[in-house]
Amino acid sequence: MIHIAVLGYGIVGSGVVQVLDKNSGRISQNAGQEIKIKYILDIREFDDCPYKSLFAKDFETIVNDPEIAVVVEAIGGIGAALEYTRRSLEAGKSVVTSNKELVAEYGSELLKLAMEKEVNYLFEASVGGGVPVIRPLAQCMTANIINEIYGILNGTTNYILTDMEKNGTDFSEALHEAQKKGYAESDPTADIEGHDACRKICILSSLAYGRHIFPRQVLTEGISGVTLKDIHYAAKLGYAIKLLGRSRAINDKVSVYVAPHLVSKHSLLAVIDGVMNAVVIRGNAVGNVVFCGAGAGKLPTASAVIADVIDAVKHLHARRWISWDECDAGLVVDSTLLDSAWYIRTDATRSKVEKEFGSVIFAGGTGNEAAFITGVMNGTMVGDLLSRGITVQSRFRVLGDY
Amino acid sequence: MIHIAVLGYGIVGSGVVQVLDKNSGRISQNAGQEIKIKYILDIREFDDCPYKSLFAKDFETIVNDPEIAVVVEAIGGIGAALEYTRRSLEAGKSVVTSNKELVAEYGSELLKLAMEKEVNYLFEASVGGGVPVIRPLAQCMTANIINEIYGILNGTTNYILTDMEKNGTDFSEALHEAQKKGYAESDPTADIEGHDACRKICILSSLAYGRHIFPRQVLTEGISGVTLKDIHYAAKLGYAIKLLGRSRAINDKVSVYVAPHLVSKHSLLAVIDGVMNAVVIRGNAVGNVVFCGAGAGKLPTASAVIADVIDAVKHLHARRWISWDECDAGLVVDSTLLDSAWYIRTDATRSKVEKEFGSVIFAGGTGNEAAFITGVMNGTMVGDLLSRGITVQSRFRVLGDY
Repeated sequence: MIHIAVLGYGIVGSGVVQVLDKNSGRISQNAGQEIKIKYILDIREFDDCPYKSLFAKDFETIVNDPEIAVVVEAIGGIGAALEYTRRSLEAGKSVVTSNKELVAEYGSELLKLAMEKEVNYLFEASVGGGVPVIRPLAQCMTANIINEIYGILNGTTNYILTDMEKNGTDFSEALHEAQKKGYAESDPTADIEGHDACRKICILSSLAYGRHIFPRQVLTEGISGVTLKDIHYAAKLGYAIKLLGRSRAINDKVSVYVAPHLVSKHSLLAVIDGVMNAVVIRGNAVGNVVFCGAGAGKLPTASAVIADVIDAVKHLHARRWISWDECDAGLVVDSTLLDSAWYIRTDATRSKVEKEFGSVIFAGGTGNEAAFITGVMNGTMVGDLLSRGITVQSRFRVLGDY
Repeated sequence: MIHIAVLGYGIVGSGVVQVLDKNSGRISQNAGQEIKIKYILDIREFDDCPYKSLFAKDFETIVNDPEIAVVVEAIGGIGAALEYTRRSLEAGKSVVTSNKELVAEYGSELLKLAMEKEVNYLFEASVGGGVPVIRPLAQCMTANIINEIYGILNGTTNYILTDMEKNGTDFSEALHEAQKKGYAESDPTADIEGHDACRKICILSSLAYGRHIFPRQVLTEGISGVTLKDIHYAAKLGYAIKLLGRSRAINDKVSVYVAPHLVSKHSLLAVIDGVMNAVVIRGNAVGNVVFCGAGAGKLPTASAVIADVIDAVKHLHARRWISWDECDAGLVVDSTLLDSAWYIRTDATRSKVEKEFGSVIFAGGTGNEAAFITGVMNGTMVGDLLSRGITVQSRFRVLGDY
């Protein structure tokens, strides 16, 4: 029997407890032994909770208990989560988490500490919720050199964009709806402005390219600039608008960014609706591989956390397959240099647009508005052209193989 | 340094050699040591092959060489592949393969033998080609009870159905085209009649439900009965026709079968075109997870084989995560009992159809032809109804949550 502790009894923590209880037979069988929760750390009171007897208020009890082999960090954020993770690893306990913020900011340090202590720091649930992405990338695609990763990494923004597209709801109304349904937080900034997607593409890119990539290195644009007009024009051209996190290997460098993209209605990403996530990974041998499913939610996230717990239990002092080195400041290039076709909505006349951009595909628009897709050019060129007296309302990349 | 042998220098074997060579830096780094091919076993002569010096004609050399730790079986079929796999495992060597026929027929025996000898028998490439499916199912979804698996498991038939749908090509012409492009073999029976998909759903189901499920237990229908008329009517109703392998847990039993299905044009499976594969796995915690990518091909398959080789190298005497028990003859139930809505094309008049089936959705058809979708009923009921004087031209399930 293995004893574990769950830090934090919020959505993720309580989901982990619930699934460990519900599927205990299969989980024990797969882990090769029973997994028993010895402590749940939370400062709050849960009077009606069936696991009441397990609650602890003091982390010292947990970190000093030699019986605890694995700690599930379900606190979130940086502060206490960082401190408890460090101290658990230092005490020779493996740590499992879904905390993308912590992994994106402190991943290389915590992985190094885990390696020194011969324990594991695992975070499958930090990207894609319940969808397996990190382990497939690290293990199943390990014979490949990774050329590109992109995907719909945030369920909240995808819910909002889907609502706008399917129901003609405007942005603020769709956001309000997402909040009512519990898909968006009362302060939705991290989702809406792309920070959450940014953390996830940082984690995937660090793993794929072997160096820690920090969120502050990544140009990040959210969806607050996407209007119903843009969605309408994109649809006329045969595209949906999706918020993508994306990274591409370019010679020895990597371009990483988060931004809304036009994706073809015939592509797989276009049918990923609502809170679903999808990640496309391109390897030089396997080509494109796509992973899709529920990107968040209590039970899906718990599913991924517990898979990591089982893995940690089966390899208490034995693994190295997730790792990357410290940041190399020169690795990440300016993503505006990445070639792309662009969707642009302006107040210019068609003739002015054609004069500045040459041959484009117009989506329509009358009088003082023109929406169109350009040929392939880099962002600097688009900026230069636009400085010639055209006011831009919207400007998004068109996903393609450039 | 680890020495391996590759048995068979056909498409898969030569792909493995090629990718091991091309991506040797990344592969060595991920395996923790250099992986060196010491022998390639093939009875044919390859005069211009750059790896000529590695060729061996005699399996005895390989099986008796204590330096060989991992054997890649890329022979295919049952005969020599089975014998060499058994003997390699008995000699304490791990075996890696993409041979779905062998795994589907002898999986439990070979897994048991590997366990006894404390080595690994790995076959990620046997399902989905390069797409990671087996490891995610066995490792990442291990906290879940699996309720259902279904997917497009055969690229050849999907290529043909896509060609029929997009280009109006008839079946025999599309098959001929697939053969010309190398997607179908000169004897296409195993693909066209669903045997290949059957082997793959057997492997996934054995892994998910813990008991060996043999192809002979699985009702298997291929695509030779799918006509352009059916594709046309299905499209009018908002569906594409896809060949699916499918298994569902029903109480303590499992229903497993292979058959063409109507899938909604709005679903993810409908956009999986050409030789792509997609597998949907439903867990009781995570919900639906989908894996997509190139289902076959030299380099994608090699990518998956080498990932297994790396895994075997890192766990020479240490793993058990892929396993299932021997067949339980009572586990698999008659899949005709599984409820479904049905697409049916008959020579009956609309009034006769409505008399027999009650309220249905007609796709059109005039005079002596009616194509329609029934309400939810099991296959026996459909059979009974049809015995009442209606000739059936086509009858396919409609994929849904029944």
